[in-house]
Amino acid sequence: MRKKKYQDVIDWLINEIENGNYAEGEKIPSEFELAEKFNYSRQTIRRATDELVNNKYLSRIKGSGTYVGYRFRKKQYNTIAVVVTYVDNYIFPNTLKGLSDILTANGYSMSVYYTDDCVLKERENLKLLIADNHIDGLIIEPTKSALPSPNLDLYQKIIDMKLPMLFINAIYPHFNSPCIRINDQKIGEESVNYLFQQGHKKIGCIFQADDIQGHMRYKGFIKGLKKANLKFNQKQICWIDAVSYQNPNQLFSYFLSRLKGCTAVVCYNDFIAEKFIGFCKEQGIRIPEDLSIIGIDDADYSATLIPPLTTFRHPQYHLGELAAKSILKMIDNTNFDANYIFQSQLIIRESVINRKD
Amino acid sequence: MRKKKYQDVIDWLINEIENGNYAEGEKIPSEFELAEKFNYSRQTIRRATDELVNNKYLSRIKGSGTYVGYRFRKKQYNTIAVVVTYVDNYIFPNTLKGLSDILTANGYSMSVYYTDDCVLKERENLKLLIADNHIDGLIIEPTKSALPSPNLDLYQKIIDMKLPMLFINAIYPHFNSPCIRINDQKIGEESVNYLFQQGHKKIGCIFQADDIQGHMRYKGFIKGLKKANLKFNQKQICWIDAVSYQNPNQLFSYFLSRLKGCTAVVCYNDFIAEKFIGFCKEQGIRIPEDLSIIGIDDADYSATLIPPLTTFRHPQYHLGELAAKSILKMIDNTNFDANYIFQSQLIIRESVINRKD
Repeated sequence: MRKKKYQDVIDWLINEIENGNYAEGEKIPSEFELAEKFNYSRQTIRRATDELVNNKYLSRIKGSGTYVGYRFRKKQYNTIAVVVTYVDNYIFPNTLKGLSDILTANGYSMSVYYTDDCVLKERENLKLLIADNHIDGLIIEPTKSALPSPNLDLYQKIIDMKLPMLFINAIYPHFNSPCIRINDQKIGEESVNYLFQQGHKKIGCIFQADDIQGHMRYKGFIKGLKKANLKFNQKQICWIDAVSYQNPNQLFSYFLSRLKGCTAVVCYNDFIAEKFIGFCKEQGIRIPEDLSIIGIDDADYSATLIPPLTTFRHPQYHLGELAAKSILKMIDNTNFDANYIFQSQLIIRESVINRKD
Repeated sequence: MRKKKYQDVIDWLINEIENGNYAEGEKIPSEFELAEKFNYSRQTIRRATDELVNNKYLSRIKGSGTYVGYRFRKKQYNTIAVVVTYVDNYIFPNTLKGLSDILTANGYSMSVYYTDDCVLKERENLKLLIADNHIDGLIIEPTKSALPSPNLDLYQKIIDMKLPMLFINAIYPHFNSPCIRINDQKIGEESVNYLFQQGHKKIGCIFQADDIQGHMRYKGFIKGLKKANLKFNQKQICWIDAVSYQNPNQLFSYFLSRLKGCTAVVCYNDFIAEKFIGFCKEQGIRIPEDLSIIGIDDADYSATLIPPLTTFRHPQYHLGELAAKSILKMIDNTNFDANYIFQSQLIIRESVINRKD
């Protein structure tokens, strides 16, 4: 089958623009001029430019003319950068898979950077991807979002570059970029609510101090205590930082002295819950008979812990999928609102005892 | 000497208003009526009302009349509430003395509340002073300013009451009220700067995670490292919370493992510096030969520690004085800008060794 006439016009226009003969925002020849050049009807020319306008390759301004559209700038590398704190464990492989599946299906490749939750490494990564400048969008999980960031200068550069930027899991306070995350505050509140329903009245927690998720879960936690009319004892609010994940036992030993009298502890995430359960067992504390534990995130190993961990679901793969779909929409449409909060979902297993029985 | 005629008019007007015969914003009798009542000239009446207008006891609206001014509302109790985290130790007695001296000299009494740096106690205090509603202004040091506050509803009530409110030492992020404080970020930066000048290259820190001062000192600290071109090692950033002040040795033992290799440690304040020095000595670590220590605040005992502590000055008494003067100005003039930042001032004693010697 012979190529349609209007396709000739499309191919020629795209070629001219890609070769730089017309830059973004520049006026292309009028329909009359194109009709003369190809010796086609103006209807055929119109059909070609209509299609390019629909796809944002061109934009038509009434009474003025037709111009090279932003699509040429915004989708030139077919690459999305993804910056996360970790890649190889916990919830992150699933999120990366969700991202990758959608991006690949849409013809994009994914450059992955990770920060080890270290601001220095985040800085190196941001510098790299700014210098490289061969990406169409950035999906980023912030590093140490509850502390003043020394990398705001680089974030500002990215904003100035008008690069579509989508946060996942958390966002620095008072940043205006969109963010896809779980409902951290609600999860903190519902963890207390569930424990209270199970007859627990002295509830402590271990939250992470350097991530904003820790602050939001804390906020929900004390809201939950208030709603249940339980006494708030700040001694039983324990704070941990990301560095201490590596070797938390000394801290846990100190926390146990602060948590004395508690019948249940809400852990910042399943990683901490697992380590804390292990430590408690070594101390002869039975879980859940002596101490009930709730985690957050539903890590892949949480169902097979002894006891299986009661926790809150993190959408992991689905969050990755949604983030990928959203960044592509942001590239096509600068007005697209990508903000999304996944609702909390408790997964009841066996690490919480019912004290009413 | 006989009382001036116009003073009769002033006394009568103030008496009438204080007895509630005329409320704030209500029109008082015209000059003509007052002249008839006292059988004085209208010039004498005018002199009396002029003085009351100048002092904001009355306000005159051209072509309409003279009304009871806001001064009667704003200075009716002669009481300033002061809410601080602690009262009986550290820098707080000096700040309270500075406040008290100025307030007393101006005929105000001072109601003191303290929160023990506990949000629950802050809540009780705020509730009390809102219910009491017999204060003209509030000077407040926030509690756990780096965490989401569960008491924002009460702060909002105070703002809605249009009660003059002045923060000291710290303020919740993105609050618009004025604040008098020291330059926490600069102090963090200069502590590194000084240690670097003394030949230190591996510098750790212990900062408080739940107060915004800790975050700002951390921000300055890493800025200082950057300026000195020193390596940033997040393992050497240790975070403590207010509750652990009571019994910090277990934490210190953990921190020492993270601070391994450091020749100097910046402590969040002199309180922590003193405790940490004591702990280090018990472990056989010599201060400053093995480890140099800098504090912040210049507590009353810091000069007599062994070794005497190198630290940064906190204006303590002067901060109290300035806060008291400022709240009085805020009461008189709603447009007065009370924001003030005391500049940093290093006090060199003997807890830092010069490694260049």
